[in-house]
Amino acid sequence: MVDSVKMVIAVRKDLDMGKGKIAAQAAHAAVSCALKSQNDHKKLFREWINQGQKKIVIRLDSLETLMRLKTMLDQMGIISCLITDAGFTQIMPGTVTCLGIGPVEESVIDPITGKYPLL
Amino acid sequence: MVDSVKMVIAVRKDLDMGKGKIAAQAAHAAVSCALKSQNDHKKLFREWINQGQKKIVIRLDSLETLMRLKTMLDQMGIISCLITDAGFTQIMPGTVTCLGIGPVEESVIDPITGKYPLL
Repeated sequence: MVDSVKMVIAVRKDLDMGKGKIAAQAAHAAVSCALKSQNDHKKLFREWINQGQKKIVIRLDSLETLMRLKTMLDQMGIISCLITDAGFTQIMPGTVTCLGIGPVEESVIDPITGKYPLL
Repeated sequence: MVDSVKMVIAVRKDLDMGKGKIAAQAAHAAVSCALKSQNDHKKLFREWINQGQKKIVIRLDSLETLMRLKTMLDQMGIISCLITDAGFTQIMPGTVTCLGIGPVEESVIDPITGKYPLL
């Protein structure tokens, strides 16, 4: 059986972004992760597309939590993309807004991100 | 001067989706449009990436408005991707949730989508 492959988009809750802003940042994360995996993890990318590009959106309470998660993913060799905002609206330029993760096998990522609440 | 290129993500407001759901649907639209343009409109895709993958999220009041917009874009040869939800949560399977548009030159798309409010 083929393992399910998904993308996880982790959004900072502490920034109090509006829903349009969150949607744009999540979209940015998803495109960045998709293109990165298309180059560096072709098999995962193809499986993710073939399985309907499953994705979930979770929330993190702070920048510290996000950066800790990013460090762990880097150490494990899991694709991730840190998204910073250009800052034209709502928040300061250069603010880290979210972290795109994967596509990655659910059996690998669920033990790591499964504890965070859905947005 | 190079024309600015952006992606527009048009989300149905009448479905009352939660912000996590909206973010996931917008991400789906963005990835689909990015990959489609990468194949079919390479120059726009490259410019969009080089300019920082600008995107805005607008809201539409109904499925009818969305489909009318989609028809107009098709007639004009502008890239768009209709997103339907798998329906595991919140809404019925197969529901059209949003429309990804572009990447496309702002001078082309603004006269068409500029009248819709930001989400």
